[in-house]
Amino acid sequence: MDFPVPPVVVEALDHAVRHGALGYPDWPGGNPLRAAFAGRMRARYGWRVAADEVREHTDLIQGLQLTLHLATAPGDGVLVQTPNYPPFLATVTTMARRRVESPWLRTADGWVPDLAGLDRAARDCRVLLLVNPHNPTGRVLTRDELREVAVIARRHDLLVISDEIHAELTHDGHEHVPLASLGDDIARRTVTLTSATKAFNLAGLRCSVVHYGPERLRALRDAQPPDLYGVVSTLGVVGTLAAWQGGDDWQRRLLRVLDRNRRRTAAALAEWGGAEPLPEAGYLYWFPAALLGATGEDPVADVLDRTGVLLDGGAGFGGDGHRHLRLNFATGAPLLEEVLGRLSAAARGAGAPGAGAGASPAVGR
Amino acid sequence: MDFPVPPVVVEALDHAVRHGALGYPDWPGGNPLRAAFAGRMRARYGWRVAADEVREHTDLIQGLQLTLHLATAPGDGVLVQTPNYPPFLATVTTMARRRVESPWLRTADGWVPDLAGLDRAARDCRVLLLVNPHNPTGRVLTRDELREVAVIARRHDLLVISDEIHAELTHDGHEHVPLASLGDDIARRTVTLTSATKAFNLAGLRCSVVHYGPERLRALRDAQPPDLYGVVSTLGVVGTLAAWQGGDDWQRRLLRVLDRNRRRTAAALAEWGGAEPLPEAGYLYWFPAALLGATGEDPVADVLDRTGVLLDGGAGFGGDGHRHLRLNFATGAPLLEEVLGRLSAAARGAGAPGAGAGASPAVGR
Repeated sequence: MDFPVPPVVVEALDHAVRHGALGYPDWPGGNPLRAAFAGRMRARYGWRVAADEVREHTDLIQGLQLTLHLATAPGDGVLVQTPNYPPFLATVTTMARRRVESPWLRTADGWVPDLAGLDRAARDCRVLLLVNPHNPTGRVLTRDELREVAVIARRHDLLVISDEIHAELTHDGHEHVPLASLGDDIARRTVTLTSATKAFNLAGLRCSVVHYGPERLRALRDAQPPDLYGVVSTLGVVGTLAAWQGGDDWQRRLLRVLDRNRRRTAAALAEWGGAEPLPEAGYLYWFPAALLGATGEDPVADVLDRTGVLLDGGAGFGGDGHRHLRLNFATGAPLLEEVLGRLSAAARGAGAPGAGAGASPAVGR
Repeated sequence: MDFPVPPVVVEALDHAVRHGALGYPDWPGGNPLRAAFAGRMRARYGWRVAADEVREHTDLIQGLQLTLHLATAPGDGVLVQTPNYPPFLATVTTMARRRVESPWLRTADGWVPDLAGLDRAARDCRVLLLVNPHNPTGRVLTRDELREVAVIARRHDLLVISDEIHAELTHDGHEHVPLASLGDDIARRTVTLTSATKAFNLAGLRCSVVHYGPERLRALRDAQPPDLYGVVSTLGVVGTLAAWQGGDDWQRRLLRVLDRNRRRTAAALAEWGGAEPLPEAGYLYWFPAALLGATGEDPVADVLDRTGVLLDGGAGFGGDGHRHLRLNFATGAPLLEEVLGRLSAAARGAGAPGAGAGASPAVGR
């Protein structure tokens, strides 16, 4: 994300650094993130979470890996919906779990999860890894879709790991529903992963929170050596608390910029011949590589070579990812126009002026 | 430690926060801590370390726990010298390794490791956990003592985990020697744990470095899921680099203050009837609780009750810890005088004026 850190977070970190809060933290009631998370879930989504079911980690993916490590064994089936965030897919492979894929379908109504297929694929899985809001399609699952997911999870006795890190970047007209808020059964089988790092641009803080719905899993986690999996930094906690307590105005302004940018990108895609559904959350646009004439096996390299613009996408996303590209539009208008201009030239089959191997990549992934 | 964070660290963190270094870090050559550690070891101790043998963790104790987790199994013998830092001893117990103790001996020459006893006790151990400079006695092992440790490690084919976090706080007249710098055999069997957090007062940054001497162990560590054990924060790295690159003047001033305070504390101990050897490193003074008339099973509670001063010490340190107290003298002169004044009153058996259950504890542990 090409935006500065929210000033309220800067001030809080600055205060902590200048006033000696870099010694051992003094949190007599335990890590304050837990209660803060519970309060925020209740206020935003009406989801009542007990603070003592929350734990903190240094990274969202750590929460995923630790859950797989504690709750599953090599060879266990992990159900993922593709396309998907490459580090999630890579985790399943690296940890020697069996990756079972169910596709997102591109229909006339936009991106739709294949829930009938998900149900079938779940038959010999132990875990469903849900990404909602979804990366890369930008879909926010509806309450009805989530209810179906919960039925599938119950029917096949799945543990669900629900990544909800993009939840707070849900655009107007859509509603994020925490999966575990749907009812007791799904709550008891769901591990919810989130962090303030996406919605407040704080990735480097290395701080995430995990709600452990399954009591047995939480107990297993607490029975581990206390520091084996690391400790979040004081500044990670201070920054997250500041964002949650004072960053909502900043986030509203961010969402206005992202809304403008997703519409601007949609207009460009339309010019290139695509009618691609607006992302319902976040700052990523997933679209067919063919719109840019990138029909080979590595559309990212192809587009970089022809335009000097580094997009993401490709086979690492699983499914038919190799036929898609992902554009990150969390940037200012001038850079976005530069990027879209170069891509438009490529779409016209003309090659963008000034592009080529020597040009520096113009947009983050 | 009751001192502010070094200004050079404050400035570096402030710059990172204000200039957007909170996104995903961009370290194309890998984490820069590794080369910085290698450079510092060579400059300070003549120890030639390959940067690619270094890994970073969020906490020194994580490095200990991960090494025990990867290299040993429950029931394996872990040799520790007591008294010792309570979280280290607790780790051995929590991880269900067998704790084998060898004592530090209080002789007319001061605190001396019982190396003959260590050799005997090592017979059925897999690991030696060395703490050097030692906490709580403040001893800095001499090169000759370390050579004997290396011989013992080789004789019993031990993995050595060497905590050297207090190394940079070694006082004039003593020399810190990294154990792994003694030779090839000991280097290949030693995991060295350190961090800038003690010597620069940065505990809350949660950043430590580990030198993995044993190649097999390093490979095992690298074969783990990449985020399972967490990720150090960007600010942890920025702060550590700033301290190492620009904090030496600050550290020299710190050492002057600590030197003054250890001598002042020694003088107080002499008044109470003790001739306790000066700590050779660090800011902790280990002394017999009997000097304060605290002869019961819980000297910490006894002294807190009588003086309002919260020391550390007691049974958690293992060995004869229950007969000792540990005073942290990393504080300013006024507070140190207040503390020593109250303790002096206790030593005289008079009860300090204004002390008692209602008084707030006057010094950190």
